[in-house]
Amino acid sequence: MKKEEVLSKLRHGVIVSCQGDPKVNPMGTPENLLLMARCAKLGGCVGFRANMPQNVGPIKKEFPDMPMVGIWKIVSPGSDVYITPNMEAVDTLVGLGCEIIAADATDRLNANGEKAYTMMTKIKEKYPDVLAMADIADINDARLAAKAGADICSTTLSGYTAYTQDKQGKCDFDLVRQIRQENLGMFIITEGKIWTREDAVKAYECGADCIVIGTAITAPIAITKRFVTAVDGHFGK
Amino acid sequence: MKKEEVLSKLRHGVIVSCQGDPKVNPMGTPENLLLMARCAKLGGCVGFRANMPQNVGPIKKEFPDMPMVGIWKIVSPGSDVYITPNMEAVDTLVGLGCEIIAADATDRLNANGEKAYTMMTKIKEKYPDVLAMADIADINDARLAAKAGADICSTTLSGYTAYTQDKQGKCDFDLVRQIRQENLGMFIITEGKIWTREDAVKAYECGADCIVIGTAITAPIAITKRFVTAVDGHFGK
Repeated sequence: MKKEEVLSKLRHGVIVSCQGDPKVNPMGTPENLLLMARCAKLGGCVGFRANMPQNVGPIKKEFPDMPMVGIWKIVSPGSDVYITPNMEAVDTLVGLGCEIIAADATDRLNANGEKAYTMMTKIKEKYPDVLAMADIADINDARLAAKAGADICSTTLSGYTAYTQDKQGKCDFDLVRQIRQENLGMFIITEGKIWTREDAVKAYECGADCIVIGTAITAPIAITKRFVTAVDGHFGK
Repeated sequence: MKKEEVLSKLRHGVIVSCQGDPKVNPMGTPENLLLMARCAKLGGCVGFRANMPQNVGPIKKEFPDMPMVGIWKIVSPGSDVYITPNMEAVDTLVGLGCEIIAADATDRLNANGEKAYTMMTKIKEKYPDVLAMADIADINDARLAAKAGADICSTTLSGYTAYTQDKQGKCDFDLVRQIRQENLGMFIITEGKIWTREDAVKAYECGADCIVIGTAITAPIAITKRFVTAVDGHFGK
């Protein structure tokens, strides 16, 4: 798939993120995440995001025409950077056919002592036909990712870094607006904490080109918990 | 489990309905509905609702201590009544260990030419230790179900009968309020079209003793579609 075709398929649609840790989530096995992807496709999504080769591979194989945002979360001692933090991970995901590789592109040091956003340059140099997607947390990250050559930027990490702790729990619409206003030349994805239809529409109103929804669709444990917590709160439990 | 213990377990909690037609929904197989039940349990639900012996059985077996609302949808020519419409279905569900049997208890004729709400009396007569749950559509149904001996009534069918077409698409909070106000002596469940935390809390504010949430948790196809439809609407598609 040509890069422009990929972006055209995604534009103004819903990407569904199919993730889950099988150690704590029965839905998190490769087989069950594929099942979720099937359901998301039947529901009208335009692409997928998945983590780790064992989950990315089967979904990509069954849906070759659906753009796949591949990531590989690898936790390394001494660094907070864990989303696709090295080129070995990228090589594997590209080998599985991912049209888009997302990686941490924040202004933080990875386990190799390099700034995370330099991954964008590395991906573009080695794989010019693959779209490099910058998972960023604030506008500074977005600017650095754009300079490093990212094709796409996504608000994925807002609320999950030390410098965005104040953004926890809610979708970061302000960040989407800022990225749009600065006209950084990247395709903009709103990702993270989209729970309602209103969130989804607002993400677009703020200037997104596409949105990623994960937990609210593919994590029945978290969805149940959200309802139960609201009810418990009502009864002061 | 004693009847009072069952109701006490359910009170002020969330029952999760695990349903799906495997012909159109990959999540609808017995194995995958059991997977959904596992997730719902991990998310903190207090009980389940499931349809057909092949789905009720495995969930009940794995979670013997969680109250199960068993139903069996059987479509019969010449009648609109299809939720557990006869005693053979009840016998099977009781045999599987369901603490609660829900059945259509509307003021409509079933395939045997009897008023649907008479099922409540039949269930109570044959199985005095089982809770009879009346799936009703309006306040008239609720009154008839109470007279027929129902222990529980649920707003399940509001919006799904010819006389409640105006209630389509939204949770029928008014009906919950009416049933509460009339003090009919039944445990009140709000069921149907609870999509948000606000809906869940409002159901309780209107006087519910318990709520059932299904699609919003266990139907990823429908959840995806709901987001996609909202986004499409925003773009005038």
